[in-house]
Amino acid sequence: MNIAILGVGTVGEAVAKILLQNKKLIAARCGEEIVPVIGVVRNLNKKRDAAILLTDDIDSVIKRDDIDVFVELMGGVEEPFRVVSQILERKKAVVTANKALLAYHRYALQNLAQNTPFGFEASVAGGIPIIRALREGLSANHILSINGILNGTSNYILTSMMSKGSNFADALKKAQELGYAEADPTFDVGGFDAAHKLLILASIAYGVHGNPEDILIEGIEGITPEDIFFANDFEYVIKLLAIAKKTGEKVELRVHPALVPKDKMIAKTDGVTNAVSVVGDAVGETMFYGPGAGGPATASSVISDLIDIARDGKSPMLGYKAPFELNALELLDPSEIRTKYYFRLRVEDKVGVLAKITNLMSENNLSIDSLLQKPKDESPYATLFFTTHTSVEKDVRRTMEILQEQEFVKEKPFMMRIEE
Amino acid sequence: MNIAILGVGTVGEAVAKILLQNKKLIAARCGEEIVPVIGVVRNLNKKRDAAILLTDDIDSVIKRDDIDVFVELMGGVEEPFRVVSQILERKKAVVTANKALLAYHRYALQNLAQNTPFGFEASVAGGIPIIRALREGLSANHILSINGILNGTSNYILTSMMSKGSNFADALKKAQELGYAEADPTFDVGGFDAAHKLLILASIAYGVHGNPEDILIEGIEGITPEDIFFANDFEYVIKLLAIAKKTGEKVELRVHPALVPKDKMIAKTDGVTNAVSVVGDAVGETMFYGPGAGGPATASSVISDLIDIARDGKSPMLGYKAPFELNALELLDPSEIRTKYYFRLRVEDKVGVLAKITNLMSENNLSIDSLLQKPKDESPYATLFFTTHTSVEKDVRRTMEILQEQEFVKEKPFMMRIEE
Repeated sequence: MNIAILGVGTVGEAVAKILLQNKKLIAARCGEEIVPVIGVVRNLNKKRDAAILLTDDIDSVIKRDDIDVFVELMGGVEEPFRVVSQILERKKAVVTANKALLAYHRYALQNLAQNTPFGFEASVAGGIPIIRALREGLSANHILSINGILNGTSNYILTSMMSKGSNFADALKKAQELGYAEADPTFDVGGFDAAHKLLILASIAYGVHGNPEDILIEGIEGITPEDIFFANDFEYVIKLLAIAKKTGEKVELRVHPALVPKDKMIAKTDGVTNAVSVVGDAVGETMFYGPGAGGPATASSVISDLIDIARDGKSPMLGYKAPFELNALELLDPSEIRTKYYFRLRVEDKVGVLAKITNLMSENNLSIDSLLQKPKDESPYATLFFTTHTSVEKDVRRTMEILQEQEFVKEKPFMMRIEE
Repeated sequence: MNIAILGVGTVGEAVAKILLQNKKLIAARCGEEIVPVIGVVRNLNKKRDAAILLTDDIDSVIKRDDIDVFVELMGGVEEPFRVVSQILERKKAVVTANKALLAYHRYALQNLAQNTPFGFEASVAGGIPIIRALREGLSANHILSINGILNGTSNYILTSMMSKGSNFADALKKAQELGYAEADPTFDVGGFDAAHKLLILASIAYGVHGNPEDILIEGIEGITPEDIFFANDFEYVIKLLAIAKKTGEKVELRVHPALVPKDKMIAKTDGVTNAVSVVGDAVGETMFYGPGAGGPATASSVISDLIDIARDGKSPMLGYKAPFELNALELLDPSEIRTKYYFRLRVEDKVGVLAKITNLMSENNLSIDSLLQKPKDESPYATLFFTTHTSVEKDVRRTMEILQEQEFVKEKPFMMRIEE
C-alpha cells in the first residue's frame, strides 16, 4: 500500500520513521507493506530528518494514481479542505490528524467520503485510540457524558500551578521553555484546541452539528494562586475540561476550567497527558489515558488508521494476518524473571540474626535496597521487611528455601515482586 | 440481524435487555436492527427476567439457518468449544465473553473461524474496549509491556485491606457479602481469572501460545496487614498485576500481587474497577480504565461486537449509518447550563459586606454551599471564596455583573464551574 504524506513536520517525520522501523511488524499485522512513497513540504530547503522522498508540488502528488492513501498533516482549515476534497472525489483514502479541518468540515467530508476510507484517530487525544473507543467499543451505549482533558499544554500549566503554587505567567513560561507551549499560546490555553476535539467526539456520540463558535469556550488565563489555595483546601484540583453532556433532548458542549474532586480518576491526570472519561448507559464510566501530542504518539494513531485501511476493516482475530519473526515469541522461564523483590520475615529478636540474614542474601546474589523492622509488639519475635535491587527470580526462590530452613526464622518467609 | 444467546444468565439477560432498550440507537449506528430471537438455558423452570424467548434445546438452535450470529455465554471450556466449533464450521459468526474458552482454544478457534467474524471484546476487562485498543488502536506499535488489573474481586479486597487495614479473611467476607466474590473465591483471588485474560491480551500483542498452566500465577491469599503497613510506609500500593513484557526475544507472562509506587496511574485504580496499562514503542504509555465485570458493562462489549458484525467491519465515519431521532441533537444554549459554581471575590474588608453579598446572591437564585475567607494579608482588601449548590448559568452571569458594579468589590469577580 503506497502512501503520500502531505506535510512533513514532527508528525509526518515520525510516521515515515515508524513505518520504516516497524515495517515487518506492521506488514504481519495488516498483510501488506505500507510504503511511504512521497512527502510534500512547502520549503524543500529546510533541513529535516525525513525517511521519505520530498517534493513541494502538492497538486501533482494528489493526482498520482500509484498512491493508495493520502496522509494529510498540513495544518490549517481551508487549504487542507480543498486538497482533501479533491482526493476524496478521486475515491482515494485519506488519513488526517487535523482537528480544525474536522471541527469545521466533518459533515461535508463525510458526504464526500461516502464509502471511501477516511481515518482521523490522530485528530483527538494524540496516541489514545478514543475515536475507535467511542465509535466501535462503546457503540451499544447512549453516551450520557464525555469529560476530557484534551489539551496537554493547559494541563501541564495547571499541574505546575497546583504542585508548585506558581502563577499562570511563570507556569506558561516554563511550559514554553520545555516546548510544551507555543510562543503564542492562545489556541491552547484559551480552550480552542480542546473545543475542536470536543466537537469531533460529540459528533460521534450525539451526531451534533455546530462549529467551535457555537459553544462555550473559556481558557485558564484568569486562574490565580488564590484559586489554587481554595482548591487545595476543599480537596479539588483545577482542570481544563471539555464536556459533552446529554441534558433532556439537547446536548451541552463546553470547554472551561473546572474544580474537580481530587479523588475522581480524571483528576489524577497530570502534566502533558490527556484523558477522556466516557459514561455510557450500559457500561458506566470508562476512562482512556495517554499522550495527547508529540510526533511518535500521534504517528501511532495515524498508522493505526493506515493499518485498518490495509486490513479493509477486517482485523484478523488475534491481530496477525501473517507470521512474523517476533510473532509467536517463546515464553520466558519464570525462574529467569528479573525484577525487584520484597520479603517479610518473622525472626527471633536477638543479636546476630540480622547479620546472618544479610550475609545469606548477599551469598545468593541479592543486594538489599531497604530494610525496615516493625515496631516491637508483645511477641518474642520481630518482623523484618527487606527490598532488593533488581534480582533474578531463581536466586530469590533459592534464598527463600534457605531462609525457611534457618532455626531463627519462625514463619514461612513471604515474598512479593515490586513493579516500578 | 438475528442472534441467538447461548446461556442466559446475568450477561445474557443484559444483552437482550439493552438490545431492546437501545434498539433505535443501535439500528442507526449499524444500519440494521439486531434482534435477539432465541435464548438457550439449561433449566427452563428457573425464573428469570429475560426479554427473549427461551429453550433448553441447544443442538437444534445452533442448526437454525435464520440465526446470523451466536452469542456464547455458557461458561466452561470444552462444552462451549464443541458448540462454537460446530457453529464456525457452518460459517456462522460468533461473539463470546468466555475467557477460559479463549485461554485454552484461541488458536484452534482462529483456524476454524478463518474469515467468519469472531468477536471476544467482552472476554477481557468487561466493558473496557481493550481488545480493539490493542488489535486496532495500537497496531503500529511493538508492545513493550502490558500491566493489567484484570480481576475486580481481588482489587476490591486489596483496596479494602489498604484503606481499612483489614486482614484478607475479613476483606474477602465483605466482598462475598456485597456479591463481588464467589462462595469459592479461588479462581479470582488465586490469580487464575486474570491469567486467562492475560493470555488473550498477550496473544494479540505478541502472538504467544501457551495455556494458563504454562505461566507464573500467584494469588493474594498470603498478604497480611504487615505487608500493608510496609507498603504504606514506603509509598506503595499492593495490586494483583497481570504482566506481559518483552524481554529480549522472549515474553514474560506472570500474574502475582506486586508493590506498585502510589503515584503510578494504574496504582490509582480502586475497588472492583479494572485497568490496563499498555506501553508501545511509538505511543508510550496508554491506560484503559473501567468496569471489568457486571451484566450491563459486559453486555456493552458483547453488543459492540454484534454492531461491528452488522457494519461488516466498515464503521460509518462519524458513527451513524442512518438518521436517528436522538441523532443531530440540538446544542443547549450555554445560559441554560446547570452546575455548581465557585466564585472568587476581592472586597473591602469591613462590616456588612458579607451580608450584602449573600443577600445579592440569594436574590439571584444562588444558594451558597460553602464559604472561605483567605487569611488576611497586608492589603486593605479581603479575598472571599464561595461555592454554590446547583445553579443556572444565566443567574450566575447576572450575579457576576451586579457584583462587579458594587463599590465594595475591588477586582473583577472570577468564576469557575465545579464538576463533580
